[in-house]
This record gives sequence, structure tokens and C-alpha cells, in this order.
Amino acid sequence: MALPSLVPLNAETSTSSVAVRVRFDETDAMGIVHHGRYLGFLEIARVEWLRKRGIRYADWAAMGRHLAVVEASCKYVQSARFDDLLEIEVTLSELRAASLRFVYVIRREGFVLTEGMTRHACIDDDGKLCRLDEAMFDVLKRGEV
Amino acid sequence: MALPSLVPLNAETSTSSVAVRVRFDETDAMGIVHHGRYLGFLEIARVEWLRKRGIRYADWAAMGRHLAVVEASCKYVQSARFDDLLEIEVTLSELRAASLRFVYVIRREGFVLTEGMTRHACIDDDGKLCRLDEAMFDVLKRGEV
Amino acid sequence: MALPSLVPLNAETSTSSVAVRVRFDETDAMGIVHHGRYLGFLEIARVEWLRKRGIRYADWAAMGRHLAVVEASCKYVQSARFDDLLEIEVTLSELRAASLRFVYVIRREGFVLTEGMTRHACIDDDGKLCRLDEAMFDVLKRGEV
Amino acid sequence: MALPSLVPLNAETSTSSVAVRVRFDETDAMGIVHHGRYLGFLEIARVEWLRKRGIRYADWAAMGRHLAVVEASCKYVQSARFDDLLEIEVTLSELRAASLRFVYVIRREGFVLTEGMTRHACIDDDGKLCRLDEAMFDVLKRGEV
Repeated sequence: MALPSLVPLNAETSTSSVAVRVRFDETDAMGIVHHGRYLGFLEIARVEWLRKRGIRYADWAAMGRHLAVVEASCKYVQSARFDDLLEIEVTLSELRAASLRFVYVIRREGFVLTEGMTRHACIDDDGKLCRLDEAMFDVLKRGEV
Repeated sequence: MALPSLVPLNAETSTSSVAVRVRFDETDAMGIVHHGRYLGFLEIARVEWLRKRGIRYADWAAMGRHLAVVEASCKYVQSARFDDLLEIEVTLSELRAASLRFVYVIRREGFVLTEGMTRHACIDDDGKLCRLDEAMFDVLKRGEV
Repeated sequence: MALPSLVPLNAETSTSSVAVRVRFDETDAMGIVHHGRYLGFLEIARVEWLRKRGIRYADWAAMGRHLAVVEASCKYVQSARFDDLLEIEVTLSELRAASLRFVYVIRREGFVLTEGMTRHACIDDDGKLCRLDEAMFDVLKRGEV
Repeated sequence: MALPSLVPLNAETSTSSVAVRVRFDETDAMGIVHHGRYLGFLEIARVEWLRKRGIRYADWAAMGRHLAVVEASCKYVQSARFDDLLEIEVTLSELRAASLRFVYVIRREGFVLTEGMTRHACIDDDGKLCRLDEAMFDVLKRGEV
């Protein structure tokens, strides 16, 4: 059975929220979180998004399935500072046969600090593009467990 | 005198090239440079782009003029690895009254690894948006010195 | 009243334990957590040690009191890996008029991975050495609240 | 032939000097280089120390020989800041059958900022301790080429 190129997603189950406390070594000499640090925050949020669906990303990697980042972007609206408690909202926004896309909103006490996007290709241990298998689709389409 | 909103740039002088050697602590467990690390590479390249035009970015910062990153993006085409010698081509692609935009191409031995973009707003020490002054425009419009 | 050069500490209250999950961007191309990353772990643990005693380190910094690191060391016994849940045991081991010392043991499922030590001097916003005041001593000598 | 446990080193050839420019994302909210960052500086200096003796560390790693860090320490005397040009003096101070030790002095314009030490064990791809072979000894005992 051929998988459709674009898999329908349920808006009610495709979003999770993850809290991250800003560490001192994530700040820079402007006194704020360095802009390059945010891609790391998005990664933490993706890993926890998966954990909330019953999967350790490390297990997929051990099975030779990696969600390589092929594109990433951030819009910086307001700065974060040391010890801030950030709330990262992660949404799987697109799911295809061999790729997917997450969008993110980072907030502090309800106010938007940053918006982000990452696009991922599924690759094997040799870096070759490969289709997501049924078990991966099941995880990606389910809500929090 | 009001500055025009979009300052014309000379394609022949707006590009510089900067070499960066990949450090071991910039790799991750996939054996490649972590995708989040590239925003740091772009920053190094911007700082050297300015130095080639006679300016230390630290001096602008000390004078209370910061080019805060308000947007950043990367497309990852091929991976970089430990000890690779990267060539980063930086081009000032847009210059406005209070903002500017750089585009980047990262290559290894001529092959494109990554394409990047950063958009910056000029802010003062209090984080308030402010116009680039004439001296800053002179630097940004000149070629390498 | 002159403070004694070496303040007695209560072994029962001077230790706290902090859990940290290893992030993907803390690993390196050897597949393990980069050795340089551990000083960041120790810092996280110190900040939480203080929070458990009712203090945000950021508040001390805002008041112009910084515990600058003047010496740090680590012994690496076993490697940590992506997604490991680390348990960091932090003990205030020495407290003097203007300096203090923490020791750390990082474990995973009870097994020691790393031992660490940091020595700190109390400095003001100008980087000048200054005595810890009574309020700081109270915090440092109390147990978890 | 059994290798002696402690190999004599020539003080005139065991030291090299490496220059490193401080990057903006290596600073923290105190306006100085974060203390945890220095272990990365020491690593850069070791890699260049080897390169000056004709060896890419990456090649040893590819051959399954890794100089794993088993101990590291730093004394912080003065702070470094963004864009500082640091001079790192690296000395191989001890060489044994399966381990070695480097000491470091980081200076800015002749003044000492930091002193460092790292101790390394030679391990294979499985993390098992192994002897340095003759070719490695030759490299480690020679001066700059």
C-alpha cells in the first residue's frame, strides 16, 4: 500500500507543551539568551513531544532511523533571560512519506518570545533518505499517551 | 535629511569570505556538526565581514549600537564533520534605515553544505530600535579595506 | 564582628541532589557527552542547590553579588549518553569569608560517572572581591526549605 | 620491548602556541567568556599541537585511537572577553604507556588569564584502554614539523 504523500493530522492531538528553564551558560554578553541557542530548545521540545507519545528518540536512532534537520528558522520577538521558565509549544504541522515539519512557539508567562520551524528528513545510518515506517507513523499521528 | 528606506548596495563589494575550522565540540552523536551550531558560524562570519571593513563589532556594541538578530534560517544540504575547513561566504543583501539582512553560503572544497540568512534590527543598550547612523552606513556600504 | 575564616558546615544539610536529562546537542562525535559540557551540569546543580534553599542565583547577581568560578576540575569515570537521566549530588564543602567550594558527584542509576569541584570567589559588579554578607551566609548554611 | 612507564620528554620541543579569537556566543551574561568554555579552548589547542607535529587528530580517531579526557582542571585568574585574541601555550607534560597529560597557559597580550590541565587515556573504539603505539609515540615526542 502506497502511503499518501501528505498524511492528515489531528489538530487536537498534534500539539504538546514542554517547560525549559534557561541555564546561565545559554546567555551571552548582551545579558540575554544567545539567538543560536534556540535551535537547541526546539530540539529538547521535539524529544519530549515524542516521549509524551511513548517513544524515546534515542531508540529510533538506535534502530537506524534519524529525523535529520534539513531546514530550521526562528523569529525572535522578545528576549529570554537567565533562569526564565520557558514554555515551548510544539506542533507536528506536516507529515509526508519521508519527511515532516514541526512548528514551535516559545512563551514566558503567556507572552510570545520566539517562533520556530524545523523540517526533517527521515534518513538511515548511512544518511540515505528512507520512508517512515508504519510504526513511526502510528507514533507521529497519536496524541499524548 | 531622511535616509531612504532601502539603501542601494554594490554587489561587487558587499560579499566577503571567511574560513572556519570545525571544532570537536561542535559535533554531535550523529558524527556531524550539530545543526544548531551553524548560527554560531554565521555570527563568526558577520564579525569578520565587519572586521574586513575596518570595524570591530565589539566597538559598536561598546558605543551602544547592537545588530540584534530578529530572524534566522538555515537550509542544511550536506553535513560538515570534525576538522573540516569551512568557507563561509557572507553577503549584505539588504540595508534599511534601522535594519539589515545578511545571506550566507557555507562550502567545503567548493561544495555547498548550508545556506543561511539572518535579519537584524539596530537597537540601543535599552533594547530600543534605533536608526543606523551615517558612520555605520559608511562601513556597511564600503568594500573590504 | 569578624567572621571566622572557615565557617562550620552541617554535613546533614549541605548536600542536595538535582536531576538533569542529557540533551542531544551535549553529545559529541564519540557518541558521548562532551567532557567540556560537565562544567555546565555543575552550574545547573549549584543554581538548583540555591533554589532549594529559597534563593534565585539571578537575584544575588541582580544585587551585585556574583560567585565567580576561580577554579574547577572534573574526573571522568564513565561516559554519559544522549537522554541519560543524570543525578547530580552537590555539597557545599567549604565556606570562608569571601569564598566557597562545592564538590559534586554525577551518577546514572547509582553508578558514578563524574566527580567535580568548583571554587568560587564572591565579587561585586566591578569584579572586586567582597565578603559574603550575613544574609548570604544564612542561605549557604541552611538546609533545603 | 616493553615501553617504560614514563617516557622522557624534551622541554624544547614539547610546547606549542595556538591563537584563538573569542566568539560572541562564548560569552555569558556577566559579559565575560563562560568558565565552562575554556575546556573547549584547551581541546582546540591540543588539536593544533598535534597538527603542528604532522597529525590530524581526526585520523587517529578514524584509526580507532582516541585520547579520552579522564581528568581536567582550570584556574581562572583573569576574564577573557568577546573578540579577545587569546594565546594558548600547550605543553605535553607527561607521557606514559597508555596515557598522557597536557598543561596549558592562556594569555592575552602576555598576561595570564587561565591555567589548565588535561589527562588522557588512550582508548579504542570500544572504549577499552590500549597502549599508544610506536607511531603515536614518535609524533608525541617530536617537535613542530
